Amino acid sequence: MHRTKVKVAEEALDANTTIANANREDFDREGVRVVNLMSAPGAGKTTLLEAALGGLDGVRAGVLEGDVQGSLDADRLSALHLPVVQLNTDGGFGGECHLDANMVRTALPDLPLGEIDLLIIENVGNLVCPAEFRVGEDAKAMVCSVTEGEDKPLKYPLMFRTCDLVVVNKIDLLPHLDYDLDKLLANVRSVNPHAEVIQTSARTGEGVEAFRHWLAHVADLEPAPA
Amino acid sequence: MHRTKVKVAEEALDANTTIANANREDFDREGVRVVNLMSAPGAGKTTLLEAALGGLDGVRAGVLEGDVQGSLDADRLSALHLPVVQLNTDGGFGGECHLDANMVRTALPDLPLGEIDLLIIENVGNLVCPAEFRVGEDAKAMVCSVTEGEDKPLKYPLMFRTCDLVVVNKIDLLPHLDYDLDKLLANVRSVNPHAEVIQTSARTGEGVEAFRHWLAHVADLEPAPA
Repeated sequence: MHRTKVKVAEEALDANTTIANANREDFDREGVRVVNLMSAPGAGKTTLLEAALGGLDGVRAGVLEGDVQGSLDADRLSALHLPVVQLNTDGGFGGECHLDANMVRTALPDLPLGEIDLLIIENVGNLVCPAEFRVGEDAKAMVCSVTEGEDKPLKYPLMFRTCDLVVVNKIDLLPHLDYDLDKLLANVRSVNPHAEVIQTSARTGEGVEAFRHWLAHVADLEPAPA
Repeated sequence: MHRTKVKVAEEALDANTTIANANREDFDREGVRVVNLMSAPGAGKTTLLEAALGGLDGVRAGVLEGDVQGSLDADRLSALHLPVVQLNTDGGFGGECHLDANMVRTALPDLPLGEIDLLIIENVGNLVCPAEFRVGEDAKAMVCSVTEGEDKPLKYPLMFRTCDLVVVNKIDLLPHLDYDLDKLLANVRSVNPHAEVIQTSARTGEGVEAFRHWLAHVADLEPAPA
């Protein structure tokens, strides 16, 4: 019985890869680079985007907001006058705890791909399953709040390992926490020696320019060879 | 195709209920009451248990630690000289983002049920899927950190709705956050008017006695009628 279950999971992942590749072809055709942005709930993804996307000069950005339910984050980002599309996993997708390539594909007709250079896909807040599903992105980034403790790279290694960028957020709170930043950085390195790491406070603006710089670099990437 | 997928999910939930009921019968036979403790990653479940379980006079507690990988939290709780068993979802359970009744059942032989009155099952850090799977518990509790923002009950309503107790943790950080505690409490009430709410700081100890009192109350519950 157990062997059968594993086989089903592998088939599901294969279908996801097929659809992720189809998404990627559409993005490439329109010259859109894509970031899959992940984190635990409440790490500050939306606040970071509010801080960063306004000043992203020369890059036309759009956002696909993934949530189980509601449109709170999409409503906030709409104030930036960017194309923002809400994708709810409880609307026909069983309330899933992550975005997959098929969900993203369902939202593509609502996105003005011809009018943007960079699409940020803000995933459902979760450190486990979002790391397992490619959606057609050029880069994966995650936000890790210093309020979550230094041990998260060791407890959720796949998420940290799969990301090109780890944003360590809420560093304005460091003076008020029992938190060893060097330990966190060593834990990140132990599971992913190659990840870029940026320290930010979305609230004070510290480090946000470095995140903008990273986004602009992704937006300038050449399409991957087919 | 879509109809078929939904049908499979329903069957999986039914199997989970069957096994949860079997767990519950074992717990009742041994006179053990059980709390399913959930939260987002880094909300402070383990630190709260470290603070609360030491002074839980008259109640013999044990802990089942659920994590995708590793035994960091179980190692911390072992210092309390309580029975602690680690359950990893990546060891034969596909790296699942939640505990289900079957995983808990697999761990039961390692738990000295005859020697404890209260079992705390610390679930995988995740605000989505753990809310969907009964494991045979008497009560569900969640920890919600004030660093996660006030909107989480609206974004993850099933988790907040399913819990008997919501612990609002890290309140020592309130002076350093842009956080409206009344708004959080109103959001909790809007999705779950009946949940008990306790405010704590696991770090300073504030409110921990109220959490101990709640645990002792669960430990004293009569078994539910069969």
